[in-house]
Amino acid sequence: MTDQCATGSLSERKASCRAGSNIAFIKYWGVVDGTTSAASGQQLVVSDDLNIPLNNSISMTLADAHTTTTVAWDNSADLPTDRISIDGVQLQGAPAERIGAHLDRLRALAGVSDRAHVVSNNNFPMASGIASSASGFAALTVAAAAALGLQLDAAQLSAVARQGSGSASRSLFGGFVEWERGWGEGESFTCPEATVLDSRSVAHQMYDEGHWALRDIIAIVSAGAKKVSSSSGHRLAVTSPFNAARTECVSEWLATVRRAIAARDISLLGPILEADALAMHSVMMTSAPSLLYWQPGTLEVLHAVRAWREEEGVPVYFTIDAGPNVHLICEVDSAAEVERRLRGLAAVGRVLSSGPGAGPQLLDGHLF
Amino acid sequence: MTDQCATGSLSERKASCRAGSNIAFIKYWGVVDGTTSAASGQQLVVSDDLNIPLNNSISMTLADAHTTTTVAWDNSADLPTDRISIDGVQLQGAPAERIGAHLDRLRALAGVSDRAHVVSNNNFPMASGIASSASGFAALTVAAAAALGLQLDAAQLSAVARQGSGSASRSLFGGFVEWERGWGEGESFTCPEATVLDSRSVAHQMYDEGHWALRDIIAIVSAGAKKVSSSSGHRLAVTSPFNAARTECVSEWLATVRRAIAARDISLLGPILEADALAMHSVMMTSAPSLLYWQPGTLEVLHAVRAWREEEGVPVYFTIDAGPNVHLICEVDSAAEVERRLRGLAAVGRVLSSGPGAGPQLLDGHLF
Repeated sequence: MTDQCATGSLSERKASCRAGSNIAFIKYWGVVDGTTSAASGQQLVVSDDLNIPLNNSISMTLADAHTTTTVAWDNSADLPTDRISIDGVQLQGAPAERIGAHLDRLRALAGVSDRAHVVSNNNFPMASGIASSASGFAALTVAAAAALGLQLDAAQLSAVARQGSGSASRSLFGGFVEWERGWGEGESFTCPEATVLDSRSVAHQMYDEGHWALRDIIAIVSAGAKKVSSSSGHRLAVTSPFNAARTECVSEWLATVRRAIAARDISLLGPILEADALAMHSVMMTSAPSLLYWQPGTLEVLHAVRAWREEEGVPVYFTIDAGPNVHLICEVDSAAEVERRLRGLAAVGRVLSSGPGAGPQLLDGHLF
Repeated sequence: MTDQCATGSLSERKASCRAGSNIAFIKYWGVVDGTTSAASGQQLVVSDDLNIPLNNSISMTLADAHTTTTVAWDNSADLPTDRISIDGVQLQGAPAERIGAHLDRLRALAGVSDRAHVVSNNNFPMASGIASSASGFAALTVAAAAALGLQLDAAQLSAVARQGSGSASRSLFGGFVEWERGWGEGESFTCPEATVLDSRSVAHQMYDEGHWALRDIIAIVSAGAKKVSSSSGHRLAVTSPFNAARTECVSEWLATVRRAIAARDISLLGPILEADALAMHSVMMTSAPSLLYWQPGTLEVLHAVRAWREEEGVPVYFTIDAGPNVHLICEVDSAAEVERRLRGLAAVGRVLSSGPGAGPQLLDGHLF
């Protein structure tokens, strides 16, 4: 009876969520956190863990690359710390601490000190160029909040997810999504008022997943782990001499990408995709220390994409996240042809592909 | 007798020169030619063919990569156009016109309309990552001027060579060389006064070739011709959003490189070498159109160099010209070890190597 009751209680405080990863058309790179100025004459003193970005970003949520996460809160003395498993592996050390720190945010919102059982599975390989932190922190946030009975809307959940991983803020919505940086030119913030940015820097849906049948075809050229994680890299953006010029360009590119998505115009979207990715990697390469995420296969794919487009008229464009793998963006009509060509390149191992997907879904079934 | 006399006359108006190529530690990328402003509030309207650079550059002249050129002026009616041969191939079309235009500059200085026989040989393969235009236009300028009996000093010859190919201005001197851009912040020029820049934008020797036993070890990862020539690329620099920030950085890097060469300090020189090369390639990648000179093998070498240095303590640094091949810079003590490691990389074909060399030498023997 006691056992049944405990099980019943645990079951009520358990929830599961599936959330899609996303691919950014305008990248998030660099945070204002911990900096004293983001632009000339401007003070932005933000605590070091809010993930308030230097620029707005725009992404497409992915239908076929998602994370499913079950969270069960447990106040029994048997569980002294959170227990977290991803893809069947029990986490230890820094990765476990990062997720524990995210669970702390949810505990603080609910005013509880319970520990959590977390089981999370990706339907795509880790280190594949698909941002598992985006889908993972989105699914974790939604499942953990639901299991705690927190009444948060999607924007509030987006703000919480952002603190776990910036790009997770965008995976709170399906389709085509813009994440607002939350601060304006000339605005000044110092701690503790800076926390107002926390509620402002959230994502919203621009168009749902039915708006435009784009494909993200991912060429995996290296499945090795990155030497420098994205979360460390974001702190380095401000050390690049090109950072300020990049964020200025991004303002202009954002406007074009909004128009391109509205008009479903790949020939307007594509060149900005490539320019934005190259600008981000230029900032990475010229930061101190210099971050060189590309591998030989990255360049084989970049040259191939340009040759297919410029010499053979295939309407496909590339973008590259903070890693070596290349995302090819095209409309659904060109997808089979692009995928066929990609599989013919020596440097390309696995090829993954996804169209736009829905936002996070709470599930009835649980992973444990 | 007539024949002998003609031969005698031709022989007097014939000269040969050997000049070394050079590797830039601070790169030349971008010209002010044809632009209306190079910095805010500044007007620099320069005619389109002076090769007045956006920034000073610093290089080491190479001992073991050189061009030997013989020029013979001929006023006989038998020769309606210049006849130019490089590495045994008779030039036609655009390459011949470019050299013809350079010979025009020398004809104008001498006030003659004679045609020239030019025979030029490189002791290194073309498209190898060694700038044959630097050594080639330096040797051509010196030989052609000597054969015309022009009384020009090295700075004047440097200005003439610069108009053929910017980096050739540096090959007029041996050892360690700086090429002055020739204009100051805030200075304004409009045509025709802008021609004053022509005499100001020249190179000078910082230290001779005995100053520091550095080595340039060149990893050839691709011997294909470039899609976009450097001379076209220089016109695109101003279209990159990072161009202004790069030229600002270069001012600071120049000062450090001068100190590093003075102190023969590879650990001071090296990081700037890499930062400057990555900044230049960032400008190239983000110009419109985007120039992507790297190939897969480029990245294999970059990652290898960083691993050798950071994980194994080998004091070697990379730089990359407008092409895919990588120059590894180290002191002579490390050269054998670096060369051995380089030959072990799958992507590396041929390896070339050179120390600092002397300036152009007029030769007694001729190529024809």
